[in-house]
Amino acid sequence: MRPMNPPSASNADAFALTPIGRIESDYPDKFGIPRQPGLAPAARARLVLLPPYDDPLSVRGLEAFSHLWLTFVFHHSPERWSPLVRPPRLGGNAKVGVFASRSTHRPNRLGLSLVELKGIDTDNGVALELSGHDLLDGTPILDIKPYLPWAEAQPDARAGFAPAAPPQCPVAFCAAAEETLSQREDAASLRALIGQVLAQDPRPAYRKGAESRIYGVRLRDVDVRFRALANAAGETRLEVVEIVAV
Amino acid sequence: MRPMNPPSASNADAFALTPIGRIESDYPDKFGIPRQPGLAPAARARLVLLPPYDDPLSVRGLEAFSHLWLTFVFHHSPERWSPLVRPPRLGGNAKVGVFASRSTHRPNRLGLSLVELKGIDTDNGVALELSGHDLLDGTPILDIKPYLPWAEAQPDARAGFAPAAPPQCPVAFCAAAEETLSQREDAASLRALIGQVLAQDPRPAYRKGAESRIYGVRLRDVDVRFRALANAAGETRLEVVEIVAV
Repeated sequence: MRPMNPPSASNADAFALTPIGRIESDYPDKFGIPRQPGLAPAARARLVLLPPYDDPLSVRGLEAFSHLWLTFVFHHSPERWSPLVRPPRLGGNAKVGVFASRSTHRPNRLGLSLVELKGIDTDNGVALELSGHDLLDGTPILDIKPYLPWAEAQPDARAGFAPAAPPQCPVAFCAAAEETLSQREDAASLRALIGQVLAQDPRPAYRKGAESRIYGVRLRDVDVRFRALANAAGETRLEVVEIVAV
Repeated sequence: MRPMNPPSASNADAFALTPIGRIESDYPDKFGIPRQPGLAPAARARLVLLPPYDDPLSVRGLEAFSHLWLTFVFHHSPERWSPLVRPPRLGGNAKVGVFASRSTHRPNRLGLSLVELKGIDTDNGVALELSGHDLLDGTPILDIKPYLPWAEAQPDARAGFAPAAPPQCPVAFCAAAEETLSQREDAASLRALIGQVLAQDPRPAYRKGAESRIYGVRLRDVDVRFRALANAAGETRLEVVEIVAV
């Protein structure tokens, strides 16, 4: 499959879209980010509106909504796209159409996330406090819309190759990791975040058994090092072996 | 409230986004389009993919999903925006922040609609058959994503000033309108569409009582002329007085 180059920016039909805000997030790195929002509710982020959008009037009434849609750009993804992608949900070897997936490698690189709104800070410009997000630090946001449950909650929708949330993997912390955590002010929330992120098993789809390799995932200001272990029944669990400040 | 001009397209932070497809729709005109998708399930549309996106591979597997997200541009809305808007749901006189609304008058003019996928036609390029949409004919589409009910159905979300679907208005057809309908091949689906669109009461928010004025709403290739009547209890209903080919 030959990747296609992005359409030329001089295309007469193109729209110039400007970020209205930027994300400050617990996820400094792509590796480890849950593949959908809501899977790691302990994840915290701030959406900081940029001038001239940072007028408190622009979010008046938003506090009455519990959930928001964010439309954003996968700014670290390459601009090339191809008609077929390999979703991790299919083990990384079956191909589906790019528009039948939520892949980041797509035309226009647009992302869409449903996030929970925890608070609105208008002391100095506008910042929205979010949880359960799946957004890389620095992500440019193009739009914010309130969630309308009577129009947008379709629990009975058919969902092809992704019919349910992915299974969760058991996660354990070794003594050294527990010790490091205990010395932090954000021990409880960081522990929850690490547990929820690793429960998604962020390893590449083709490595899902136990193996000797140590992986690292960046969360907030730490590198969380973990490995996969098998129990007597051959089931895999992940163990945090070390938490290192970066 | 002074409307803001759009950010300059030469802004170094802007993203150039190109339509991947275009909508052919039952709604040739803005007036009368339901304010959310799903309110008029009889509405039919085709999303025709544009080159180079019109490769059948790009939608492989999409048929297994019943619902899709479409990200699009409100291409007929002015590029000016303002921090406050007046949602029709609040009678058109209370103001809320633009990001607390789904107003079309917003920065970047991005729209988001959940639509039902009825079929995929790959005989000549790619066209998706949609229902229940709220999209103006000619709307440029920037992205298609499958709907994930386990991540995106949040029936218990709080929804501020729009907590439930708007109430429906009774709709009647006069004899002349019924006669015109009976002569059309698409009589059943056009009748359903007219009923569902008028049940939303598309008149401006400040005119919700009975009045003598005749309104016209364009659907498919006809102009549907209707008026508001009051019954003995003072409740308003809408009556289709004439259906005229355009």
